Amino acid sequence: MTVKYSFKNDYSELAHPQVLAALAQIGNKQFDGYGLDGYTCAAKEVIKAKIKRPDAQIHFLTGGTQANLVCISSILRPYESVIACESAHIATHETGAIEATGHKICTVKGRDGKLNPEDIEGVLNLHRDEHMVKPKLVFISQATETGTIYSKDELEAISACCKKYNLYLHLDGARLGMGLNSDHCDMTYADVAELVDTFYIGGTKNGALFGEAVVICNAGLQEWFRYHVKQKGAMLAKGTAVSLQFMALFAGDTPLYDTLALHANDMAQKLAYGMRKLDFDFYSEPQSNQIFPVLPYLVWEKMKERYDFYEWLPVKEKGKPVVVRLVTSWATPEEIVEMFLQDLLQ
Amino acid sequence: MTVKYSFKNDYSELAHPQVLAALAQIGNKQFDGYGLDGYTCAAKEVIKAKIKRPDAQIHFLTGGTQANLVCISSILRPYESVIACESAHIATHETGAIEATGHKICTVKGRDGKLNPEDIEGVLNLHRDEHMVKPKLVFISQATETGTIYSKDELEAISACCKKYNLYLHLDGARLGMGLNSDHCDMTYADVAELVDTFYIGGTKNGALFGEAVVICNAGLQEWFRYHVKQKGAMLAKGTAVSLQFMALFAGDTPLYDTLALHANDMAQKLAYGMRKLDFDFYSEPQSNQIFPVLPYLVWEKMKERYDFYEWLPVKEKGKPVVVRLVTSWATPEEIVEMFLQDLLQ
Amino acid sequence: MTVKYSFKNDYSELAHPQVLAALAQIGNKQFDGYGLDGYTCAAKEVIKAKIKRPDAQIHFLTGGTQANLVCISSILRPYESVIACESAHIATHETGAIEATGHKICTVKGRDGKLNPEDIEGVLNLHRDEHMVKPKLVFISQATETGTIYSKDELEAISACCKKYNLYLHLDGARLGMGLNSDHCDMTYADVAELVDTFYIGGTKNGALFGEAVVICNAGLQEWFRYHVKQKGAMLAKGTAVSLQFMALFAGDTPLYDTLALHANDMAQKLAYGMRKLDFDFYSEPQSNQIFPVLPYLVWEKMKERYDFYEWLPVKEKGKPVVVRLVTSWATPEEIVEMFLQDLLQ
Amino acid sequence: MTVKYSFKNDYSELAHPQVLAALAQIGNKQFDGYGLDGYTCAAKEVIKAKIKRPDAQIHFLTGGTQANLVCISSILRPYESVIACESAHIATHETGAIEATGHKICTVKGRDGKLNPEDIEGVLNLHRDEHMVKPKLVFISQATETGTIYSKDELEAISACCKKYNLYLHLDGARLGMGLNSDHCDMTYADVAELVDTFYIGGTKNGALFGEAVVICNAGLQEWFRYHVKQKGAMLAKGTAVSLQFMALFAGDTPLYDTLALHANDMAQKLAYGMRKLDFDFYSEPQSNQIFPVLPYLVWEKMKERYDFYEWLPVKEKGKPVVVRLVTSWATPEEIVEMFLQDLLQ
Repeated sequence: MTVKYSFKNDYSELAHPQVLAALAQIGNKQFDGYGLDGYTCAAKEVIKAKIKRPDAQIHFLTGGTQANLVCISSILRPYESVIACESAHIATHETGAIEATGHKICTVKGRDGKLNPEDIEGVLNLHRDEHMVKPKLVFISQATETGTIYSKDELEAISACCKKYNLYLHLDGARLGMGLNSDHCDMTYADVAELVDTFYIGGTKNGALFGEAVVICNAGLQEWFRYHVKQKGAMLAKGTAVSLQFMALFAGDTPLYDTLALHANDMAQKLAYGMRKLDFDFYSEPQSNQIFPVLPYLVWEKMKERYDFYEWLPVKEKGKPVVVRLVTSWATPEEIVEMFLQDLLQ
Repeated sequence: MTVKYSFKNDYSELAHPQVLAALAQIGNKQFDGYGLDGYTCAAKEVIKAKIKRPDAQIHFLTGGTQANLVCISSILRPYESVIACESAHIATHETGAIEATGHKICTVKGRDGKLNPEDIEGVLNLHRDEHMVKPKLVFISQATETGTIYSKDELEAISACCKKYNLYLHLDGARLGMGLNSDHCDMTYADVAELVDTFYIGGTKNGALFGEAVVICNAGLQEWFRYHVKQKGAMLAKGTAVSLQFMALFAGDTPLYDTLALHANDMAQKLAYGMRKLDFDFYSEPQSNQIFPVLPYLVWEKMKERYDFYEWLPVKEKGKPVVVRLVTSWATPEEIVEMFLQDLLQ
Repeated sequence: MTVKYSFKNDYSELAHPQVLAALAQIGNKQFDGYGLDGYTCAAKEVIKAKIKRPDAQIHFLTGGTQANLVCISSILRPYESVIACESAHIATHETGAIEATGHKICTVKGRDGKLNPEDIEGVLNLHRDEHMVKPKLVFISQATETGTIYSKDELEAISACCKKYNLYLHLDGARLGMGLNSDHCDMTYADVAELVDTFYIGGTKNGALFGEAVVICNAGLQEWFRYHVKQKGAMLAKGTAVSLQFMALFAGDTPLYDTLALHANDMAQKLAYGMRKLDFDFYSEPQSNQIFPVLPYLVWEKMKERYDFYEWLPVKEKGKPVVVRLVTSWATPEEIVEMFLQDLLQ
Repeated sequence: MTVKYSFKNDYSELAHPQVLAALAQIGNKQFDGYGLDGYTCAAKEVIKAKIKRPDAQIHFLTGGTQANLVCISSILRPYESVIACESAHIATHETGAIEATGHKICTVKGRDGKLNPEDIEGVLNLHRDEHMVKPKLVFISQATETGTIYSKDELEAISACCKKYNLYLHLDGARLGMGLNSDHCDMTYADVAELVDTFYIGGTKNGALFGEAVVICNAGLQEWFRYHVKQKGAMLAKGTAVSLQFMALFAGDTPLYDTLALHANDMAQKLAYGMRKLDFDFYSEPQSNQIFPVLPYLVWEKMKERYDFYEWLPVKEKGKPVVVRLVTSWATPEEIVEMFLQDLLQ
């Protein structure tokens, strides 16, 4: 049996060699536990410099669902709720993790996986007294779950809306590298850190073995965060195991993190460009490393024999076109992309 | 400034070189996400063989607090409680993680960090109707939080008591390697797997970069466990990152895991033997890699200038003896142990 | 200032005189606490006879939100979710009470406030693995939140669907009296008790001072229910205070409960009939004691000067018709209804 | 079969006639729902005058466990815990209701069911970092669960300690009437309201049909309290049903509430005085309407044939003295007390 190349996701390979090398190089040096060591301090400084927020707090966690649930449950009081798109990861693919901490998610339809201020106001207008939850936090993702990108204008508008109505803003950055390094993105890490209350920089999907860097920008949310992290089982005894990776990803003038994300985006854009030339349609605009082409049924049948990828919408009827998701990563070889495009033609 | 050698814990070094090598060697090979890949399957088989329970279920998680809270909250109904020693990790050092999932911990005093059937029956006798919680799960640790060891007889008695009263039995194995490889232990991995419903094999404290292998022995608790893992933010996208480590630790006839634990124990016993010869007393019997000697005040003052370690009981008064905790690990050099004993004399 | 008559809800009057008389008549007789007394036993028997389920369990609680949250949280495991209409009381007007017990509500649009098997299957099809919650309980109301009525066929279809997919079925009976005594209803109390796992018979909205009778039909859900009731703060020390009321409401061949509900329905139907004759439209079919007429803007302005009632949909623009909710009760005088119809004409 | 008189508790009779009369007298007058009506406003004013805190907020709830869980869970953040006596109602007889809202209770032994500042400081000293919960609220009861009374000095000391360490203070007043009207009590309602952050005035155990008046003294805890009440299923649709009762209990210069509590205390003190004269010992000092005499085994056997009451400590061995609890109430006839004393002699 030959192994098919997988476009299923961007965490199909273990870690970039420089990340593993960073782990290997410290040998048996001793360090303090729970992220209170010098390596971790240094990694935090590097990230704070990158996002231009010396006053921010950084916490290294192990995964995205965990980062979301610790952040959100640490911010909200019991009767407060989250506003999010129907397509938001917390609303669909986290097994009710937010509700398990006691909070309702008020979903809105959104467009292209994105919210806008009118969506937020619409939810607020429906929640007016103590018989209803009180919406208090807005959840967005960059890049979104459908691969689209918020522009700086869009994020500024949401941020202003949140300030106006005294709402917190949390940004899921599982694919922040790909988001900010997209051709369609006009904002920087510093912009994100300026406009949101909390966000995280995803390592798992961009070359780390595992790990997410949670950033607490809002000073009012910093004091007790470590208690929440510990209580949710999210505090690693060896915090150093994550911080060394982030140091490898963010050190230097041309951080590996951005280089890897750019490669992932390039491979997806090359795929998209090639498919566009072949007249394929797309379910959503291909803007980052996740693209959603529409394959004619027979093409779909052929390609899934040769490659691994997910159907995005259920395949309802034989013969009808199929929307699929193709994900590229820091590790996707250009030759595979070219081969995929070739195979489409045959 | 010279760096002091630390006896603060057994997770002061990053990982055993063979563990890191196991991560490095797979290069850019692709694998399925969420622990559904072939590497993870293989690691699970190795562990099942080690514990002689082909019917058990293995789940790779990232830390001990997480392993305890996912196991316990997955088993109990809302009104059910845990029985544990006052010194149990879940009762003291997990920031109320179990209560945060809704469950009371009914603590008993215990002896040497250990429970017995009479303790359990005492709690049951106090809880008789719907105005009180219903105790339903017994929590123990091997080795215990004070470094002591349950004998096979003791564990069998607790297990029989649990069966008699229809209670679940969960064993915290953060230091299971050191527990089972202690000279004072007469039970095997297979004995543990036979006598408890759920337990975990701790990687973090015995040479892994991070990671704990949760074992679900009781078939009735297996079906939905992955849902609980995901909901609590405990499912790694790259489960392979843990399973490769456990493969490195458990493969072969003389698993690295046992070798490392034996070394940790040997170093602690060498320390204890040396201190006994110097007439030091111990707060609890030194049976594994955590020992609790009582230091005269002046000795304590001197030694803490040269080494890092925790005071176990608060230092209440100048001049009074101090109980300290010394922890050795797979990485503790024998020369350091000898130097420590020498330094005590000066 | 003259007091306007209120059609805002069916709990604007304290209690039917016979209910208060039942409380007054026992004087200083002593009884056991927590609903374990003879009066409560007798009331339970009367209800069990009424619903023809001698094997059911009855629990007297104090309110509807409480009844829903105790029932639902007692049934579900942490990763399981509820399927309900967008208009369901638990989804809109219970301040996230279900989420506060840890469970997601998966909402569907529904029609006329009602679910059908296709809605349920649609949710099940979207939830297939451990990254998503597992839908496990279907929530419906009779009468619904918009005053409509499930037919016996409809309830049987939902019940069969739940059995097919191994789902629990809970029925919110805050207005069960009005539901079952509606002209549009062809089912009995016994039918409900046969087709659902749990439901409650609402007292608060049909003549009781307060109180709901929760019925646990499914034997598998009975054993520990009192623990859940107590833990949620829902167990009255004087359970007798509720059971005496239910005895007053359900004793005899023509129970007061049905008589009162019939009156409430009759008053609403008289209103609806009168308004239909005057060519008013309705937002949803007037089938029980809640009706939702559409008032021309000027009529709305005039009538709200004379009567209290809620706008059902937000009043968006001056001049546009307004959907209002008129609720009648056991205490609504026929003269008021006639006066209201008269006032519409002027 | 003759019915034995019950000294089991102070909620064995339904309600004082004046309470029921207050409910009966308003007939079919309409009122707004959810405690937003004029009757409820008036009752709140009467209570605020009684406690001399016009700035306090009053909420009428239905039971003591509910009052405790809503107050405590509304105050604490997820990682914060409660400090309470081992004998505290929340720690023993509320089925883990507080833990079910996510919070640990740190118990201390106490003396006579009472805490003091040293107990509080002891707990604080043990909880120093994010690996442990953060104690943030002190729970006390007046009268206590063993019938004892805090003096004003004692309460002031606890209150000062709480202020010093930035802790909240919640007082369970299930038996506040009996507490404040005890001969051993030198504090007023106003003193309580001055010294604590939240407390409740228990109706259920002192003549009400049901109901507790929660008082939020700390202005910082008032704003969102109704959201918490609703979310926990604790908001009665007919709040009026409770407020009318409290109006009956607290109106006038000599409130019924105090009169009833005094009677309950008098009956208990008469019992205690009589038993003291007969040389009976007491398990705890008889200071309110719950007394705990020690009965010789044969006397216990005889008396339980004639009266209902609880054994306070388990009866361990035939022949050994038995500690029992005798509770008197507003409804206890003096003749019964005399008869009980007579029966002891025979």
